[in-house]
Amino acid sequence: MKENNEKAVVLLSGGLDSSTTLAIAKNEGYQIYALTFRYGQRHESEISAAKKVARSLGVTRHIVFDIDLRSFGGSALTDNIPVPKNREPGEISSDIPITYVPARNTIFLSFALAWAEVLEAYHIFIGVNALDYSGYPDCRPEYIEAFQKMANLATKAGVEGKNFSIHTPLIKMSKSEIIQKGLSLSVDYALTTSCYDPSPSGVACGTCDACVLRLKGFRQSGITDPIVYQKK
Amino acid sequence: MKENNEKAVVLLSGGLDSSTTLAIAKNEGYQIYALTFRYGQRHESEISAAKKVARSLGVTRHIVFDIDLRSFGGSALTDNIPVPKNREPGEISSDIPITYVPARNTIFLSFALAWAEVLEAYHIFIGVNALDYSGYPDCRPEYIEAFQKMANLATKAGVEGKNFSIHTPLIKMSKSEIIQKGLSLSVDYALTTSCYDPSPSGVACGTCDACVLRLKGFRQSGITDPIVYQKK
Repeated sequence: MKENNEKAVVLLSGGLDSSTTLAIAKNEGYQIYALTFRYGQRHESEISAAKKVARSLGVTRHIVFDIDLRSFGGSALTDNIPVPKNREPGEISSDIPITYVPARNTIFLSFALAWAEVLEAYHIFIGVNALDYSGYPDCRPEYIEAFQKMANLATKAGVEGKNFSIHTPLIKMSKSEIIQKGLSLSVDYALTTSCYDPSPSGVACGTCDACVLRLKGFRQSGITDPIVYQKK
Repeated sequence: MKENNEKAVVLLSGGLDSSTTLAIAKNEGYQIYALTFRYGQRHESEISAAKKVARSLGVTRHIVFDIDLRSFGGSALTDNIPVPKNREPGEISSDIPITYVPARNTIFLSFALAWAEVLEAYHIFIGVNALDYSGYPDCRPEYIEAFQKMANLATKAGVEGKNFSIHTPLIKMSKSEIIQKGLSLSVDYALTTSCYDPSPSGVACGTCDACVLRLKGFRQSGITDPIVYQKK
């Protein structure tokens, strides 16, 4: 592990991608300030996973921030619209999915930016991926670039020439590459959760898009996914 | 009043600027969706003013959204740092003030964008001003332009070619011009509050930068400010 004495704010959902992202930032030597949102998603199990991951990988501080996006409506992850099930990985990627939450990454990155400026941290990590989630507009490199540019105009630190960087280490990796990277950095995937529609006790469904992509990633890596599924 | 049958999300703090902005949007014929934040600012009187203004000018819906920016610290408006007092208007404008809240407008605009996308509203109004508040980086035209560009890359609506516009009708107006515009549109400034440091019962101090700028604007307009001050 390198040491660079710099601080980084890492967006951590408790899923496979953000947990791997945190491990990558940690391995690059940053002091980690992890930020998780309780945003009216239907499953508290994500928050619990994020806490376990933060503890397991070692962070300087972890904040769970409450924002109730249900006030606005408009997504399967915050409304009562049924989550699509049993699709093949190939069926998932091209349209904008029903699970898209309007401006979600923009809201998350804005809070990360606020905290980063207070901390004098000039590095923000987000586990977006432009391959498996190509349907989400706010997972694309051109979006991240535009956010970074805006962030440097928005802030006192930016105006004073201390540039904020938005790091997206997973953006061009396949799910299987992400898993292999995470395992090389000792991420305990048993602590993570990716499911859009878990049981009340937090058991992954195995059939929503997020579960299908995750299971495919493990299969392609030749590794067994350590979490329990209702069906797979 | 024109009618254009389009919806607009308007950021409404309950202050003079945002109330005038709402009146301008209304006069342009938009159906108004007003958005106010309870963000750990020290004075609940702002929220109460925002509700009165929304009722008085007529909005389709008004949401008061809770986000506790105190978790992050870092500003006189959310921490216990003393608010500067008794400065002349000329002393206020060039540095970034202690009352700057990191990434505040970025967070507010991100929520406005989320709600706008759900509503299929492609117009967002914010009462930023680049003259009196030139010290705030997130009140400058280049920042607003960068946010708008990012917003159109961030969203499903943006990707599908329905462009979001961020409207800043006050950006180049003096305080006195803003007041005259508002009065011509029947804004009742007695309902508004601008003070950074009001008494527990909500009476404006008369000596913080926001009060000093507001009083100067009324003086220059030859009009008496209808609100009560502790001292002026």
